Amino acid sequence: MEQGMEISKHEADGLIVTLDAAEFNKAVGRVMAAAEARSKIPILTHILIEVDPETGLSLFGTNLDMQAEAGFVPESARIDQGGRLCVDGAMIHQISGRMKGELTLIESKGRLRLVCGRAKADLPTLPAGDFQKLGDMEGAVIVEVASGALKAGLASVQHCISTEETRYYLNGIYLECGGGNLVFTATDGHRLGHLEVTASGEALPHFEGVIIPRKAVQAFLKLAEVHDGEVVLSISDRMVQLACGRDAYRTKQIDGNFPDYHRVIPKDQPIHMEVPVPDLKEALNIVVAASSDKSSAVRLTPTEGRLTLSVRNEFRQAEAVIEHDDIPPAEPFGLNGKYLQQALDRIDAPLVKIGMTDAATPFRFEAEGSDLLQVIMTLRA
Amino acid sequence: MEQGMEISKHEADGLIVTLDAAEFNKAVGRVMAAAEARSKIPILTHILIEVDPETGLSLFGTNLDMQAEAGFVPESARIDQGGRLCVDGAMIHQISGRMKGELTLIESKGRLRLVCGRAKADLPTLPAGDFQKLGDMEGAVIVEVASGALKAGLASVQHCISTEETRYYLNGIYLECGGGNLVFTATDGHRLGHLEVTASGEALPHFEGVIIPRKAVQAFLKLAEVHDGEVVLSISDRMVQLACGRDAYRTKQIDGNFPDYHRVIPKDQPIHMEVPVPDLKEALNIVVAASSDKSSAVRLTPTEGRLTLSVRNEFRQAEAVIEHDDIPPAEPFGLNGKYLQQALDRIDAPLVKIGMTDAATPFRFEAEGSDLLQVIMTLRA
Repeated sequence: MEQGMEISKHEADGLIVTLDAAEFNKAVGRVMAAAEARSKIPILTHILIEVDPETGLSLFGTNLDMQAEAGFVPESARIDQGGRLCVDGAMIHQISGRMKGELTLIESKGRLRLVCGRAKADLPTLPAGDFQKLGDMEGAVIVEVASGALKAGLASVQHCISTEETRYYLNGIYLECGGGNLVFTATDGHRLGHLEVTASGEALPHFEGVIIPRKAVQAFLKLAEVHDGEVVLSISDRMVQLACGRDAYRTKQIDGNFPDYHRVIPKDQPIHMEVPVPDLKEALNIVVAASSDKSSAVRLTPTEGRLTLSVRNEFRQAEAVIEHDDIPPAEPFGLNGKYLQQALDRIDAPLVKIGMTDAATPFRFEAEGSDLLQVIMTLRA
Repeated sequence: MEQGMEISKHEADGLIVTLDAAEFNKAVGRVMAAAEARSKIPILTHILIEVDPETGLSLFGTNLDMQAEAGFVPESARIDQGGRLCVDGAMIHQISGRMKGELTLIESKGRLRLVCGRAKADLPTLPAGDFQKLGDMEGAVIVEVASGALKAGLASVQHCISTEETRYYLNGIYLECGGGNLVFTATDGHRLGHLEVTASGEALPHFEGVIIPRKAVQAFLKLAEVHDGEVVLSISDRMVQLACGRDAYRTKQIDGNFPDYHRVIPKDQPIHMEVPVPDLKEALNIVVAASSDKSSAVRLTPTEGRLTLSVRNEFRQAEAVIEHDDIPPAEPFGLNGKYLQQALDRIDAPLVKIGMTDAATPFRFEAEGSDLLQVIMTLRA
């Protein structure tokens, strides 16, 4: 080969490992969830690769607020020599993703060589010491939870996370323990989602409530999706970690006080109606399509056995009617149509139960067979 | 109903038609290809709806350069009254897309009412006369062509259309007749695609070469994709139209001279090689992944029975080797890796034939079983 592309294993002065290109690529993809694809700080675009003849490979990515780890002993792999280095994560992900079959990684003179069949690539490295791991989880409370339950908790309320940066303490999901359950709550001040899920068979240890940032919620969800069975939450003073086997996401908590959300959940509501979810979704889709302004304010008018949805603006008007026995007459009220659509998307039951006090008080949305409680503030209708 | 949402058929002072919501929605979608979703000129966001008890529905959309028409006699529909009006295309598309089953359109007092089951919407209209149809196709040369052949012609060369607005005459596909065939050519000055396809059984009438703008190329392709069998091209002095039944796209031609491309197609090349397409694609993917700079310059080094692809920049280097009998030794040359990838994507054969004069002269790419000729200029390697 020309242009000095030849590094043989003899010249290696660090790690030498041979493994399946696809398996390596997948692990790199997992830790890239925490790394930055582009950053002015080079180390944030880099992943840390640790190779240990005893324990196999460990990959790490970080954005300084969150850290991802993927550990594995590659199947049918050979570790000839251990070592540690950092390399551009997006680049090695892109290149290894186009390689098939056996891939050998060789470190030599500050560079990492990828060899796969008749193809090779040569990438610059940074010292392993440049990678800043998040502090460890010492003293953390350990909670085992079924991956499905954790997923339900996060996925059911995450649409209520606020995107307003000034209310940073609402930019995540509040996780606490209550009544022996894990309790997930998110709110953006206009709506609220709240779900209690059973942890594992054993008694839930006590921990102080923590706010898990939005980006970590998404990473946790991804991890819970690919792992069945039990996963392990670790909650320390300043961090939260979700681990499945040797894969883990660790995140700093949002440092703030989650508001006392209990007082915004309306209780003892005098008016209750049950509405068929498919009909309500269909009606809502039509009137929201006609609204197109930012607030998407939809007016809902309950009359005996009938709920009329309508929008009316300068240009257009639309209306759709749903009929159902369990609709009592009540004063018309206004809701954000998009919030209502998202709330219904979380309901996997034929009927939604709507609790109402009056047109100015928040509404409750619940459904048979689910503990998910959703609250939506009213708009002027 | 409240708020004056009630328009009954008796109040109609224009069109009344009942048809399947999905069928209507699909036709609106087709003509929206020419309309603008957003524009400061209201009529450009509007579609024209014409209802005629004899001929059925005709919908039109325009951006003043291109016009789309969808004509149909709706199945199991009822036209109670004819009429013509303009309505916001994106809005009626969005609303009717959420309606299911029988949809009735009623015009009354400058508004269009949609009624579908228990849902209705009420939209403002503009007078039909505000819609500016493109001039007609009088005196046009008519060419019948199999939809598959037209699709092949457009799809094989469209990646070579220039995006440089200053070279507006390259912003489309040049269509001419030559040797009894339809000839499609596109070039951006760095590469060229050229394909001759047989029109229909009958003799191809003569017409002057025309430049079909990129947006029309995409619309033509869409139309050719949904229609099997013969389609009809009409070529007038200033316009080109593609019609399939009562669906048609009509476009202004690009008013300019397409350059004499024959002189950039290299002839009598002394060096020829054949390279397996899957191997070349795989090798190219790896080295292009490592390049990541804008030019994507890839160096190709042919030695006896072997072609080495390599990239080398400030940070990285990568190389991949392909072996094949029909590779003669030649001087190394440089090509834009992304152009080469796109050229290979159009080749549906196991081997690509590469014709070479020297490292400074454009390369030809052809394949067995296809008339597609592609030319790529060289880069300094």
